[in-house]
Amino acid sequence: MVILVVNCGSSSVKYKLLDMQEKKELVSGLAERIGIEGSKIKHEKADGGTLKLEQNLADHKAALEKIIECLTDDEYGVVNDIAEITAVGHRVVHGGEKFNKAVLINEDVLNELESLFDLAPLHNPPNVVGIKTCQELIPHAPQVAVFDTAFHQTIPDYAFNYALPYQYYEKYGIRKYGFHGTSHKYVSGRAATMLGKPLTDLKVVVCHLGNGSSITAVKNGVSVDTTMGFTPLAGLPMGTRTGDIDPAIIPFIMEKENLQPDDISNIMNKKSGVLGVSGISSDFRDLEDAEANGNERAALALNMFIYGVKRWIGAFGAAMGGLDAVAFTGGIGENGKELREKVLTGLEYLGLEVDAEKNNIRGKEQIITKDGGAVAMVVPTNEELMIAKETEALVIK
Amino acid sequence: MVILVVNCGSSSVKYKLLDMQEKKELVSGLAERIGIEGSKIKHEKADGGTLKLEQNLADHKAALEKIIECLTDDEYGVVNDIAEITAVGHRVVHGGEKFNKAVLINEDVLNELESLFDLAPLHNPPNVVGIKTCQELIPHAPQVAVFDTAFHQTIPDYAFNYALPYQYYEKYGIRKYGFHGTSHKYVSGRAATMLGKPLTDLKVVVCHLGNGSSITAVKNGVSVDTTMGFTPLAGLPMGTRTGDIDPAIIPFIMEKENLQPDDISNIMNKKSGVLGVSGISSDFRDLEDAEANGNERAALALNMFIYGVKRWIGAFGAAMGGLDAVAFTGGIGENGKELREKVLTGLEYLGLEVDAEKNNIRGKEQIITKDGGAVAMVVPTNEELMIAKETEALVIK
Repeated sequence: MVILVVNCGSSSVKYKLLDMQEKKELVSGLAERIGIEGSKIKHEKADGGTLKLEQNLADHKAALEKIIECLTDDEYGVVNDIAEITAVGHRVVHGGEKFNKAVLINEDVLNELESLFDLAPLHNPPNVVGIKTCQELIPHAPQVAVFDTAFHQTIPDYAFNYALPYQYYEKYGIRKYGFHGTSHKYVSGRAATMLGKPLTDLKVVVCHLGNGSSITAVKNGVSVDTTMGFTPLAGLPMGTRTGDIDPAIIPFIMEKENLQPDDISNIMNKKSGVLGVSGISSDFRDLEDAEANGNERAALALNMFIYGVKRWIGAFGAAMGGLDAVAFTGGIGENGKELREKVLTGLEYLGLEVDAEKNNIRGKEQIITKDGGAVAMVVPTNEELMIAKETEALVIK
Repeated sequence: MVILVVNCGSSSVKYKLLDMQEKKELVSGLAERIGIEGSKIKHEKADGGTLKLEQNLADHKAALEKIIECLTDDEYGVVNDIAEITAVGHRVVHGGEKFNKAVLINEDVLNELESLFDLAPLHNPPNVVGIKTCQELIPHAPQVAVFDTAFHQTIPDYAFNYALPYQYYEKYGIRKYGFHGTSHKYVSGRAATMLGKPLTDLKVVVCHLGNGSSITAVKNGVSVDTTMGFTPLAGLPMGTRTGDIDPAIIPFIMEKENLQPDDISNIMNKKSGVLGVSGISSDFRDLEDAEANGNERAALALNMFIYGVKRWIGAFGAAMGGLDAVAFTGGIGENGKELREKVLTGLEYLGLEVDAEKNNIRGKEQIITKDGGAVAMVVPTNEELMIAKETEALVIK
């Protein structure tokens, strides 16, 4: 079975084609700047060969048509005909409270997705455009929606509600949804496999640390809490996002600077986080370089992030009644070995003791703590594989 | 040495007179509704006898004049003459970054306090009125300011900064200050005494749980983190305050409901917390009664609060590299025995095991966990005693 995984952003389409029998990725690619000057596609075959195209892509349909051309190209293609694509799995950011697992897309599902636009105005509309376009271009293939929020629908009410007037939950659906669910699910599953124990017996804290970061408490295989909230702004400080702050700061700044809701929202999402603190970059590698050169605010930004991760590991240990494993994933979690060591230092009381030698790795599955006690590990995430698996499971049914 | 402790709110004056040699409280009282119709004073002698006055109190000066009359009254008084009052200790809410300990008040200090009005517009102005009035009415006595924020000035930069554009810290002083410092300092000190260990060797999480609640990590005697922030809105859900929420919710609600910064600030401070969730009350006793009668939203509000406390205990364990003791104080912390048990259930992995019999107490110092491992305890707070002690220390110098 060959599955196409599609992730449509407002001006981009990320895609992967996976052969599920052979358990291998055939090709991955990215179409960027759709509808903007300078659009381009990068198409990489897993067994070598990269195609780079710079050409006008007026809309998502034009981009997906071109992607299909690439997939079936004589030289750079990996299938002879789109008929070989069994199903398409779409990453959909927000499933609200309606979707607690992946679903086969039909007219009702599309209507539901459109009713959720208010909750994810930047993400769900392009996701739906991607689905509709694929229905048109690959009409024989069942389409599946895999949600970033679905894995977190097991979070109990006392953890997903906010202490606001209850009417806001009833009227607008304001509650914690959580994101990165596909990654947290995949990584917690791999962690159990690496430990050789059933996931249903484990308490795992998954730290998905990248430009957007979230941490999830996975108890007995289900998400019981996560740091992101109603939106992906909450929790840890991120590349450009505040994470949690005293909410009273927002009206305070708005009054002082005479800002509208949109302005402050933009500042909190785009100009804050480690970029806002350091004043130089949202990229952790830049900050590490700057710190090495004595930049104190870069060091401060990194320390705030590290401290945030450490504190949430402790918080989620308490939420689960202890912890068996901490799994690091995402660009920073997989590659930031110094950062991992700093996060874990001081958590020896939880049975976590870093092994400097084992921790000296990037981007591969490995346990990084000494034997005995709880375990910390690196688990490279693979959201596309997870989306493909969930798609496969629904199509086989 | 006899010390008068004064806590001036916008329309109230709380006071206590303490005899420091005899280590006893002589009298305590409250003047309410100052400048409002129906003002009154309740004046209670420690060894019996309560005076209740209902009379017009036009301003803080009128109230303090009347209080001095009560203190020197033939029947309800406890001193013959105000000359017997050695010093006056004032609770001041906000000391900003300028005051990391209590100070003797002089003209410079008063100017500094006025420069902090912006950070605590509801609290610092009446505090300053109280100081100036006492200077006028009890001119012989040195006046001391004891700050709610001072104990938290030891919090490291990576814990007190917010991941916002750094300019907001430089321009407006937006950072975590923390509050209830006098209580956290007092309680952590008592906890060490109860454990028979030096405070400088201990990691204590102090849970001050009342209508306003905050939790502090006290490591080796100093505050290293606390849940309240730039304002007392942050951290735990409270009687009517949100605590931490996804900051993106604020502009979302403002746009949906067409609210101004003042409106949303009012909602987050006055209409949220357990009141907002339950829809019935900000009082935890009311909620417990309602829960017992099957009210699900009252149960939800209580569970959210309990879960919040539990999670912060875990977070601050991680912040300190472990924990030796958890101390409960404040109205709810001292009296809510079921709540304490629910908070501690699931924290056995930290060595905390509730002893139901020991926990069956209200409002007195007692260890409530089984022997061995970490210790949880009840420590009734005494902010006035702490203010008096800090005042004494400065006056003796």
